Amino acid sequence: MEIKVLTAVLEANDTIAEQNRELFRQHGNFVINLMGAPGAGKTSLLERTIQALSGELSIGVIEGDISTSLDAERISKKNVPVVQLNTHGACHLDANMIHNAIVHMDLKVLDLLIIENIGNLVCPAEFKVGEDHKVMLSSVPEGDDKPKKYPLMFKESKVLLLNKMDLMGHVDFNLERFKKGVYEVNPHIELFPISCREGAGLEPWMDWIRRRVRKKDAK
Amino acid sequence: MEIKVLTAVLEANDTIAEQNRELFRQHGNFVINLMGAPGAGKTSLLERTIQALSGELSIGVIEGDISTSLDAERISKKNVPVVQLNTHGACHLDANMIHNAIVHMDLKVLDLLIIENIGNLVCPAEFKVGEDHKVMLSSVPEGDDKPKKYPLMFKESKVLLLNKMDLMGHVDFNLERFKKGVYEVNPHIELFPISCREGAGLEPWMDWIRRRVRKKDAK
Repeated sequence: MEIKVLTAVLEANDTIAEQNRELFRQHGNFVINLMGAPGAGKTSLLERTIQALSGELSIGVIEGDISTSLDAERISKKNVPVVQLNTHGACHLDANMIHNAIVHMDLKVLDLLIIENIGNLVCPAEFKVGEDHKVMLSSVPEGDDKPKKYPLMFKESKVLLLNKMDLMGHVDFNLERFKKGVYEVNPHIELFPISCREGAGLEPWMDWIRRRVRKKDAK
Repeated sequence: MEIKVLTAVLEANDTIAEQNRELFRQHGNFVINLMGAPGAGKTSLLERTIQALSGELSIGVIEGDISTSLDAERISKKNVPVVQLNTHGACHLDANMIHNAIVHMDLKVLDLLIIENIGNLVCPAEFKVGEDHKVMLSSVPEGDDKPKKYPLMFKESKVLLLNKMDLMGHVDFNLERFKKGVYEVNPHIELFPISCREGAGLEPWMDWIRRRVRKKDAK
């Protein structure tokens, strides 16, 4: 019984996700669904990304949180349009929430829309919201055993950023063990080790976005 | 509609949680539901706790994970009975899963049962499993803004352990700001700053457990 309910919910979600995707396609938006554990540094990554790319791309942000507008306040200081979505307890964003959020955005001026999902390694990976790609942010202090313990998000993501590389010497984290786990779950994922705090290793990520936006424009 | 379904699920869960609770009461088990984000250090805390208390208390563990038995393997090295629960995608433990797990445990010999929940700051806080108390493990690299962003778990917990205090100088974390957020959400919570890696600050936590087990025995 429970599984039937879940299937129905996911099917309804996929229908709305397709509508969102079509809207994004019409407006030429490249859309990233950014996922990761609480405190992995998703908002810091957004700040770094906006800082590096806002001179060349028109960027918009949707901030998903259980409650508060703390993250949207951080992002709005960077002078990009941002919509705060509060899920009031729900542990993930779904396509309908995004549908309601984009009403408040001027999609036709945006090259890039980044949706910051709820901090959670489980449920966000199950729900499409109409994105081009899911991108996952992991972080060194979370430990090198996460790919095997939370496989779905690693499997669903096109890119994996490993943040807080500056803490590498201060915690028990074996990069080879982590990579082995990641590639077992998803052999095709692109992995970029970074430090948002120190601003290190971010160029491959920025280039990945540039290439994808260019490809979108070419269509 | 969706809310009705959720209410029914929670009510059914509460009924089974009460049955578990009655079983634990009959056997004199003190039961902790340990929650926290992925990588906060829940299994490391368990290892430290077993190391410190297994000479004086009879301890059992239920390990909740999406998949794998990595955590149960770590705990079984400490020579305590452990049952691995795999939720196969579900983002929290519920009372029925615990009901099925304790069939495999000899409750009458246990003083203390610790249930390690799925690494997730959202859903586990919504589901009772029959525990005496919910205990939350937070960690310094997750950031000092978490109490306001994920209030329910902080609100539902009796004790909050703040792990990875050894990283305090290496990340941006304001302890006063964190405490302010915590006590706004839950003025009665007991807060213990610790470092599982260095084995520091753990005595108040062990004493808290000792007092609770003693109180249970006195009944």
